[in-house]
Amino acid sequence: MAFARNLTLSALTGIPPVQPGEDLVGHILHALEGERLADGDALVLAQKIVSKVENRYVDLRTVEPSPRARELAHQVDKDPRLVEVILSESSAVVRAQAGVLIVAHRLGLVLANAGIDHSNVEQDGKSERVLLWPQDPDASAARIRQEILTRTGVSVAVVINDSVGRPFRNGAVGVAIGAAGINSLLDLRGTPDLFGRRLEVTEVAHADELASAASILMGQAAEGLPVVLARGFLAIDSARPASVLTREPSRDLFR
Amino acid sequence: MAFARNLTLSALTGIPPVQPGEDLVGHILHALEGERLADGDALVLAQKIVSKVENRYVDLRTVEPSPRARELAHQVDKDPRLVEVILSESSAVVRAQAGVLIVAHRLGLVLANAGIDHSNVEQDGKSERVLLWPQDPDASAARIRQEILTRTGVSVAVVINDSVGRPFRNGAVGVAIGAAGINSLLDLRGTPDLFGRRLEVTEVAHADELASAASILMGQAAEGLPVVLARGFLAIDSARPASVLTREPSRDLFR
Repeated sequence: MAFARNLTLSALTGIPPVQPGEDLVGHILHALEGERLADGDALVLAQKIVSKVENRYVDLRTVEPSPRARELAHQVDKDPRLVEVILSESSAVVRAQAGVLIVAHRLGLVLANAGIDHSNVEQDGKSERVLLWPQDPDASAARIRQEILTRTGVSVAVVINDSVGRPFRNGAVGVAIGAAGINSLLDLRGTPDLFGRRLEVTEVAHADELASAASILMGQAAEGLPVVLARGFLAIDSARPASVLTREPSRDLFR
Repeated sequence: MAFARNLTLSALTGIPPVQPGEDLVGHILHALEGERLADGDALVLAQKIVSKVENRYVDLRTVEPSPRARELAHQVDKDPRLVEVILSESSAVVRAQAGVLIVAHRLGLVLANAGIDHSNVEQDGKSERVLLWPQDPDASAARIRQEILTRTGVSVAVVINDSVGRPFRNGAVGVAIGAAGINSLLDLRGTPDLFGRRLEVTEVAHADELASAASILMGQAAEGLPVVLARGFLAIDSARPASVLTREPSRDLFR
């Protein structure tokens, strides 16, 4: 046998644009058609589709920017109302300069605009909408996983991903902002290497690696492929949510 | 049809431990057995197997540490000879404290110990060997790709990956340190979103996402699975090496 391990990723067709409150799990199960889910499969969902069904829209016309948001907006040359919303989702401003507002998201990730953007958000002509991350993406993933279990009897992992920029490297990559039913962070301490010694890499961000893999198929543009089925060699024996991937600033030796 | 796009990753069995100068492409083609490579397939190779055939070993017994390496070694509590080798592969020291030496690698990546470690490096009893990254991983990838083309007539992409830590997030992820025959960094500027507007994510680190995906199958420990075949939705219409993934410090807004 030529192959020891396999991982197959497939982007589902037929997921329609979703509205707040819609039955996302129903859409996914319908889109799967004859393809049966199996225990241990993972579904990777783009952040935006989860945020949309959870109605994480904010209409900028309803936002009154604070003096701080106005000042920062001037500095970064953005809409003060958008800056107000970004600040409401953030615990700290990391970098502010013309065109750039990088913050520490309240969930711990450091990224531009607190993950809020206008792209792939349909405007309804009556409002100026932006879309926020889910309130608690780990809880969203757990809910979706439970809903699939209830309806189908199958235990799948669920990962919610988004594409984010990062220090040192050009280009965005997919990261896991929420996860359930999968071990987001593998602890390899004590695992021997090929020659019986201690490994020097001790933790692996498994959910981030899966999020990046799925991101290859989702694309960023008009493709509209927000759901990827991953099947194969995944760490599902124990589960740890995506929140464990956030590094405490005091332990961040790269900063 | 339920699936719009697919990507299948498979770790090859039967790649033996390699020695300097060995025929890595021969090992890969042999390990593939009856599985025929096809144009557009990608092979992801662990950095260590490439470094080993390129004889990027350094025997620490031959290293005379400089005064600077001795001083730094004391500060970080590491072998002064190892620190000397790390410095020889680095352009700057980013962080030095007990047990930790994070540097800017001469190739541009910022990482611990310049990517040098002892794990999965067999000691031959006569030396104290450490293993460095390939001298020029993009060139290594291009050479391997050309060798496969010459022997089989098939045009594959080749990516060389390693697992590295990163700011803000716990756990290592696979990144591309070398690439050939694949577009390492997708430029989406001008691409419209679902609703006809400009995208806000403009560059995607495609080779890093593939490197992370392959890393899931390789593992970090005694599994010995250094070669992954990736087949499916990959960006091979134009090629850009992994070096384009290195962000100029002056353009790094996250620092």
